[in-house]
Amino acid sequence: MPVAPGPDGASLLLLDQTRLPGEEAYLTLRRAGEVAEAIRSLNVRGAPAIGVAGAFGMALGLKDLGGDAGVADIERIHDLLLATRPTGRNLAWALGRVRHVSRAAADEGASPVPGAADASGIASNVAEVAWSEALRVLDDETEACQRIGQAGAELLPPPGRTVLTHCNAGALATTGIGTALAPLYVAHARGATPSVAATETRPVLQGARLTAWELSRSGIPVTVVTDSMAGALMAQGNVGMVIVGADAVAMNGDVANKIGTYALAVLAHHHGLPFYVAAPRSTFDSAFATGADIPIESRDEAEVRERAGTRSVPDQAAVWNPAFDVTPEHLITALVTDGGLLRPPYGPAIRNLLKSTDPPTGNP
Amino acid sequence: MPVAPGPDGASLLLLDQTRLPGEEAYLTLRRAGEVAEAIRSLNVRGAPAIGVAGAFGMALGLKDLGGDAGVADIERIHDLLLATRPTGRNLAWALGRVRHVSRAAADEGASPVPGAADASGIASNVAEVAWSEALRVLDDETEACQRIGQAGAELLPPPGRTVLTHCNAGALATTGIGTALAPLYVAHARGATPSVAATETRPVLQGARLTAWELSRSGIPVTVVTDSMAGALMAQGNVGMVIVGADAVAMNGDVANKIGTYALAVLAHHHGLPFYVAAPRSTFDSAFATGADIPIESRDEAEVRERAGTRSVPDQAAVWNPAFDVTPEHLITALVTDGGLLRPPYGPAIRNLLKSTDPPTGNP
Repeated sequence: MPVAPGPDGASLLLLDQTRLPGEEAYLTLRRAGEVAEAIRSLNVRGAPAIGVAGAFGMALGLKDLGGDAGVADIERIHDLLLATRPTGRNLAWALGRVRHVSRAAADEGASPVPGAADASGIASNVAEVAWSEALRVLDDETEACQRIGQAGAELLPPPGRTVLTHCNAGALATTGIGTALAPLYVAHARGATPSVAATETRPVLQGARLTAWELSRSGIPVTVVTDSMAGALMAQGNVGMVIVGADAVAMNGDVANKIGTYALAVLAHHHGLPFYVAAPRSTFDSAFATGADIPIESRDEAEVRERAGTRSVPDQAAVWNPAFDVTPEHLITALVTDGGLLRPPYGPAIRNLLKSTDPPTGNP
Repeated sequence: MPVAPGPDGASLLLLDQTRLPGEEAYLTLRRAGEVAEAIRSLNVRGAPAIGVAGAFGMALGLKDLGGDAGVADIERIHDLLLATRPTGRNLAWALGRVRHVSRAAADEGASPVPGAADASGIASNVAEVAWSEALRVLDDETEACQRIGQAGAELLPPPGRTVLTHCNAGALATTGIGTALAPLYVAHARGATPSVAATETRPVLQGARLTAWELSRSGIPVTVVTDSMAGALMAQGNVGMVIVGADAVAMNGDVANKIGTYALAVLAHHHGLPFYVAAPRSTFDSAFATGADIPIESRDEAEVRERAGTRSVPDQAAVWNPAFDVTPEHLITALVTDGGLLRPPYGPAIRNLLKSTDPPTGNP
């Protein structure tokens, strides 16, 4: 699991994804600032995994304050973590959950939670409540992956037809079996051997480094292609479907996901292939009417300019490096969620999905 | 110039394009085998530049034989060089020209060419003839770039609209001002300042390393994007056209070009943008009725698996690495050639173009 609570209940363990596939190393983080930096630096990535890491980061921040945490501290730590990555909604959702219970606990004043291990007052009570909520966020998001997998397994093409995916929306992007990859893991557990093509996903190569790594380890055959090969692969006729994850889903069904997703959706449309987006409810945000409302993160040009210390773009040339793009809902065949498959028109289906959930808080 | 005859008349100078943009270093090659290896290893690349390098490689191979070159030698050296890269047609065309004149010279027997510097017999005569023909190939291909630039300059979008290109079809790919980039250089020389976006072009990064380098040096502003960003860039509405080069053009107008070209053509079509392919006559081959007849080179997986010694794809995962894809003629708005703009239907236009040329030989 890429994100896990430390056995001491006062730390967060992160599989350092910047070092995969060469090295499998864990970071032990004890402070909110360290978690924020790990999110910013992509040590942990994938919208759902970032959300869970953020939740624990907030709990660690509150623990760290000892006996002095109040509402202002809750807000400050919340905002510190929220500012790390602007596009993915799961982070805002998970932080919102922890903020909600933490503020409720702070409002209760000095009355300690019965059975709380630490009796040092309000702050430790708030911190315990926050930690418990982070554990629940983790459990909920793990369970959501399973449901996505079950909902999506029926979509998989017949044997011999390839499933094309982009970036990493697998176990490494979540605390469970992934989002886009969840249907593959469910089918594999049922005895099928799906065939997968993974785009390498420039500039950070999450497809080559992460998707290929986790599928290979699970015994699912995977072929890596450069992003530029996806069209030619579809033209060969062996691709059966495309499935990707999401960083944000707007209320009309528009999806923000890793840069390159939109081009794959256009290519799938051109080839008459189904294009699916898998995401838990925590990725949907009612603050976004359409994809145009979703803030798109621009990342450091160095991600494009160089790799492993070797420069590929001359200094005089400019670089564009948006981390995400928006795929309009009309190019999406179905949304694969923990509440089942959503088909167009997405507006009512999404409103219904979000109504049926009952999170302690959640995106507005 | 990326390919130039050595000042001694017995060597070939190649700008080592594998070392750009970090280092500007020239290789001096004296033997056909060295030229073959340089073509195979991408020290020289770009279909027209490969053709010129191959022509000089053949002349060097014949020189190297001293007094002993015969028809069998001509064929052997021709085949050695032809086998280096299977897709680009300019190599076959240029080698065909040198073979043709060399065989004619060999057939003339022991009668030396009047005025030939070296009187050591048939072989030196053949070698001189071959060298002269390689010089003519160079001149013809340089001139073709200029004509392509003039034909294409009128296609450029109004100021503020970006020209998107893929791979490198510029000066570095030719002995002149390029093919796809030629219209930009012509417009720039006339006082315009075109705005260019260059896809980095995985796996070998010719767009990032080469196109960005040569345009920047020429004072034409260029922004590098990953291949996966082209769709999102078009969706922003600032792209005015797409123009690429070609490695092979079939008689129906289908085009083989760098992997990723096909996806750009689909994306351009989806966005209602013109998609142009620039190529000299030497890139057309009447042996190919359609793109399905064009052999597509598969290159070493290592190009995708690692960069600068850092592995990105785990060993257990497979890799697909075709160097080219085929864009069907119906996605191409016009072919920009040294014989002017060709518009659909391409069949008659291409037959007319190839009829109007009178190369000493040429593709069949």
